[in-house]
Amino acid sequence: MDSGKLHLNGSRLESSIRELGEIGRETGGGLYRTAFSQADLKGREWLKTVLHAEGISIRTDEAANIWGSIPGSIPKLPPLVCGSHLDTVPNGGKFDGALGVLLALEVLRTLKDAGHQTRHPLVLVSFSAEEPNAYGFSTFGSRAASGKLSSRQIRDARSNEGRLLSEALEEAGGDPGNLERAVIPPGALAAYLEVHIEQGKRLLRQRIPLGIVSSITGIYREQIRLTGEANHAGTTLMSDRRDALAAAAEIILAAEEICRLAPAPEVVGTVGMIGVTPGAANIIPGEALLTAEFRAATEAQMEHLLAAWDEALRRAAETREVKITRTPILNQSPVPMDRGIMMIAERQAERLQVPAMTLASMAGHDAAHMASVTRSGMLFVPSIGGKSHCPDEESRMADILCAGNVLLHTLLVLDQSLDQSLDGRDEAHEGAV
Amino acid sequence: MDSGKLHLNGSRLESSIRELGEIGRETGGGLYRTAFSQADLKGREWLKTVLHAEGISIRTDEAANIWGSIPGSIPKLPPLVCGSHLDTVPNGGKFDGALGVLLALEVLRTLKDAGHQTRHPLVLVSFSAEEPNAYGFSTFGSRAASGKLSSRQIRDARSNEGRLLSEALEEAGGDPGNLERAVIPPGALAAYLEVHIEQGKRLLRQRIPLGIVSSITGIYREQIRLTGEANHAGTTLMSDRRDALAAAAEIILAAEEICRLAPAPEVVGTVGMIGVTPGAANIIPGEALLTAEFRAATEAQMEHLLAAWDEALRRAAETREVKITRTPILNQSPVPMDRGIMMIAERQAERLQVPAMTLASMAGHDAAHMASVTRSGMLFVPSIGGKSHCPDEESRMADILCAGNVLLHTLLVLDQSLDQSLDGRDEAHEGAV
Repeated sequence: MDSGKLHLNGSRLESSIRELGEIGRETGGGLYRTAFSQADLKGREWLKTVLHAEGISIRTDEAANIWGSIPGSIPKLPPLVCGSHLDTVPNGGKFDGALGVLLALEVLRTLKDAGHQTRHPLVLVSFSAEEPNAYGFSTFGSRAASGKLSSRQIRDARSNEGRLLSEALEEAGGDPGNLERAVIPPGALAAYLEVHIEQGKRLLRQRIPLGIVSSITGIYREQIRLTGEANHAGTTLMSDRRDALAAAAEIILAAEEICRLAPAPEVVGTVGMIGVTPGAANIIPGEALLTAEFRAATEAQMEHLLAAWDEALRRAAETREVKITRTPILNQSPVPMDRGIMMIAERQAERLQVPAMTLASMAGHDAAHMASVTRSGMLFVPSIGGKSHCPDEESRMADILCAGNVLLHTLLVLDQSLDQSLDGRDEAHEGAV
Repeated sequence: MDSGKLHLNGSRLESSIRELGEIGRETGGGLYRTAFSQADLKGREWLKTVLHAEGISIRTDEAANIWGSIPGSIPKLPPLVCGSHLDTVPNGGKFDGALGVLLALEVLRTLKDAGHQTRHPLVLVSFSAEEPNAYGFSTFGSRAASGKLSSRQIRDARSNEGRLLSEALEEAGGDPGNLERAVIPPGALAAYLEVHIEQGKRLLRQRIPLGIVSSITGIYREQIRLTGEANHAGTTLMSDRRDALAAAAEIILAAEEICRLAPAPEVVGTVGMIGVTPGAANIIPGEALLTAEFRAATEAQMEHLLAAWDEALRRAAETREVKITRTPILNQSPVPMDRGIMMIAERQAERLQVPAMTLASMAGHDAAHMASVTRSGMLFVPSIGGKSHCPDEESRMADILCAGNVLLHTLLVLDQSLDQSLDGRDEAHEGAV
């Protein structure tokens, strides 16, 4: 069979989505397949059972990431990897993460069925604990694989309920004391591809079934403490106040305004948490504590954004005579996706007559970490209603198959075009374009 | 001795302030003489011991209010009452409330020492539980005395720690099952006067030692729930958001603006509490819950204020597509003080060469309830730094004596000018002016 005409088996994919979508489902319909929970362990078992039945070799690394490999035809070529994660947020849906793993599975099955052996080994990966979780480490598996986590760092970590992360990891098949062994050395992979639901409305709005991700958003998050003066809500005239909450209100609206006025739509800012002290109806708040988060698709956008934010805070502190203390929580740079992979995906979409658009991912993903290890790319499937992290998370099967077939053929082109040398980055791009 | 030349004994007053100021003091300097606490009971005992030593007859009513009386020279004349409260907020100061009781005590002592018997009985009152307290009933004693509380209403009330209010009240000498017997019938009092610290900075700023209170602020307080849509802080574009906290920020600033633009300085508005759900750094708040409070010295100001507030909420709900639900918590009308008493106090201040200004009380006081029972007036003493409800609460002794002497002579003029009939309201005013 001409490999250019290969396509995924939609009904098999649909059943695997259905089967996995039952694991961790609670009354109310939401999935509780949270990292290292019993449901997560069940999901892992399900995946390993299917891989095993296909004769695909399985390895669980020290971070409990699951790798399923089909050997390539040319010895020593580094593997082409695709996947995502199986864990969900509490009360999550059946697509976020799972879709990327199941499409990788379907790609492997399709190629096996067709008897098509790739030159590079073809590898499925299911990363551990991608979602924010009780242990405080999101994108745990891909962070470990890209050398951003150490055994020492996680040694004393516990869930909200007091369970040791190291114990949970061990139960899932990991090796917390040797986490560093999960690190992927430079050149060890040929490429990483991940399909994910968009979790937004951009594709939906434009009625485009496929998104080709150009970059993964940078995230800057900080805690802000505004200190004014607590005082009697009756006897303190308006002109005598140093109201910490009124100052907070001003910066909340400033954050919104700065992002609204940004030249790119993919610039967002959110204040998601706030508290005041003393916190009584008849006392002017003396202190307000809040988080502010900004996301932007490029470094330039982020810099512009944070400069405007600095200025807004400075102005609020000055005009309202409040003290503003800032503690950064997270500062992830935007991660551009590999341009070579993007171009191959665009061509394959065109060839398969799948309308596609380029867009930035506004959520973080395992691919953001994998991009520091190997050339990486992402494809997005439209989310119905833009919903995610909830039981209503849904995508159309037709759109899923579009992304899956573009994934398959992007991998096949990469397989052909990537140089055989372990460090063939530039050559690969030239070959691909 | 010419009664017009009588004046209080400053050093005796100073010692009583010092003595009472030690009762309930904790390390750190703050008073914890909260309603019905052991410290409150000690304070009550201290007062009764001093009254007893002066030969002043003591009665504790069903609301555990303490009344200390000196008989008048003309039988059946209703008493002239002055006082305030002994309880404090947690970590409070030694003047809020206590000053009014101690000045009443000093007035009684001064008249006794001078051998001056008034025509009307002269009565000190110390009201129970004026401050917001763990049982949820502020101005408890004066509300009971003015018929605004029933036995049934308080039957099941408990403190945060589960103590029954009825038990606490009984321990303080009250009779929870017969609270209605504490109600003062119409015409039973000739007048009520209360000296209190200002708790603001108006007197201080103008360097005026005495405030004559024209009215006690109206207070409108409500809980506001803003319901938008919780969503992913990354993948939801700014234009797609229905952010409950951003809407809350808008109304917080609107409340401030409305009050700042009000034609009277004695119009204030405060948002003292706020919370959001779900409350995570990376989730757009779907709901915000806050309290809003407004105070104004006249009904007209309050109406104007609330109309502007309605409009601000309507606009926020409309432009931001959030649902706003409002639950009123408190709606106290402004209470004008008796103009006759105000004028007598003004004349006496002038005669004693005490600079005085008229101002509204922006805090609630027992006098607001007593005004529904009898002609009532209040005098304010400047608060150093405008501070109250804290250990730093302080007033100058010279200012305290100014207010005390004006109190003494206002009572003496009222004693002379009020008609002997039990319903001499109008005549009294004519006599006074």
